[in-house]
Amino acid sequence: MLDIGGETLVITHDAMAEGLHFLPGQDPADVAWKLVATNLSDLAAKGAEPLGVLLGYQLGDGDPRFAAGLREVLEHYRCPLLGGDTIGRTGPQVLGLTALGRATHRPVPSRAGARPGDRLWITGPLGAAMLGFEAIKASDGDSQAYRRPRALLAEGRALAPLVSAMMDISDGLLLDARRLAEVSGVTIAIDSAAVPIAAPEACRDAALRWGEDYQLLFTASAEAALPIAAHPIGRVHAQTDTPILIDGTPPVGQLGYEHR
Amino acid sequence: MLDIGGETLVITHDAMAEGLHFLPGQDPADVAWKLVATNLSDLAAKGAEPLGVLLGYQLGDGDPRFAAGLREVLEHYRCPLLGGDTIGRTGPQVLGLTALGRATHRPVPSRAGARPGDRLWITGPLGAAMLGFEAIKASDGDSQAYRRPRALLAEGRALAPLVSAMMDISDGLLLDARRLAEVSGVTIAIDSAAVPIAAPEACRDAALRWGEDYQLLFTASAEAALPIAAHPIGRVHAQTDTPILIDGTPPVGQLGYEHR
Repeated sequence: MLDIGGETLVITHDAMAEGLHFLPGQDPADVAWKLVATNLSDLAAKGAEPLGVLLGYQLGDGDPRFAAGLREVLEHYRCPLLGGDTIGRTGPQVLGLTALGRATHRPVPSRAGARPGDRLWITGPLGAAMLGFEAIKASDGDSQAYRRPRALLAEGRALAPLVSAMMDISDGLLLDARRLAEVSGVTIAIDSAAVPIAAPEACRDAALRWGEDYQLLFTASAEAALPIAAHPIGRVHAQTDTPILIDGTPPVGQLGYEHR
Repeated sequence: MLDIGGETLVITHDAMAEGLHFLPGQDPADVAWKLVATNLSDLAAKGAEPLGVLLGYQLGDGDPRFAAGLREVLEHYRCPLLGGDTIGRTGPQVLGLTALGRATHRPVPSRAGARPGDRLWITGPLGAAMLGFEAIKASDGDSQAYRRPRALLAEGRALAPLVSAMMDISDGLLLDARRLAEVSGVTIAIDSAAVPIAAPEACRDAALRWGEDYQLLFTASAEAALPIAAHPIGRVHAQTDTPILIDGTPPVGQLGYEHR
């Protein structure tokens, strides 16, 4: 973040590598969409409105398709391409995107503000990206949610004035909730049955650990009147020796997608 | 560029790939220096003062050395690291850097403002980076100018109010002067003997085509009183069918470093 001329800029940068964040066979138009949408999702979690993006583009297979997808996603979010750089191919393609946004509310929501007594909320169901990924692998079914995630910009702006902490769920609810709990210095208790999921009930546990849905996770005081529909999924307690509890016990196994 | 809160932001993004912009054996601290300095040089050419950078870092060999060089260059230019992303290794290392600056003079200098009658100036000698590159290849001599270019931020700020066009020379004087002439819609006549060089006289022609010195190239009216020492190296004429002339004739051969 950067204060300038009485405004607060929110700036995010994400890099994506072929073989790590996308697969060689994927439609480059979808890669472009995801690269932009995931950065704009970071802005959404800060209640910021996009001002523009800069692209670091390494040439690869399907450059025209990438350009088409880029145009599409930028038009969708009414976000201009402010600049960038194009470099030659050297191996697996690596892409970078910087997004700039203007904070619509100050203080800008962070992950660090959750307080004991707050409620924990989520904007929508988890698991759609997981099913989309399965559909791609099986070459059968609707993979849209995985290929073309949405950045919840309007929701983030509406929530910014009243949340105590907010983030987007990119790496899985359990992992991201733990991060929020740790930087806030609290313990978060999640009621797993209360989490809305867009997957068969048998996959509930997986949906709680799968990322890429880009729902907003936030805390707010129990009295807060929410401006948008959201789902209460837990409560914030004073810090204990476990940052998160699922149905009263610490979660076991991998909580989400750990990068690197 | 982006107008916000009564200020104008200048934003640049450069990507660098191993094997293309730097070599596998190079000291990662020098790679970090160059990645930052070349972006800040873009800000210098706009008369902007740095506000911060965001780094897209792909893990590679020598990550601690990279971190040390990054710290060094950011301290040197008093420029904070605002954020970024780190991703795993997939092949030759690819790095991206976004630099943000505040315009100190508006309109912000561009490449497009050169007018017939203007003089062409350069801030300092060319060829030092070329000699530095030779020194690295020979493992003998001073390679500092190649490894650690300087961003002429103070010079750019001092010049911004009086130039008609300005850019930094990253790809070679002849090539970059041609670009400036083309977007300005003029012809630029360069007096090759007037160009200061930091190389043996026998290498003058090569120095005029070698990039990476990051001197500022600018045009200003013949009456302009320059606030800093600079070297007049040519004149701007009405557009003809050749964008640049060297000692009265169109240059032949490769003018500079063409990317991609």
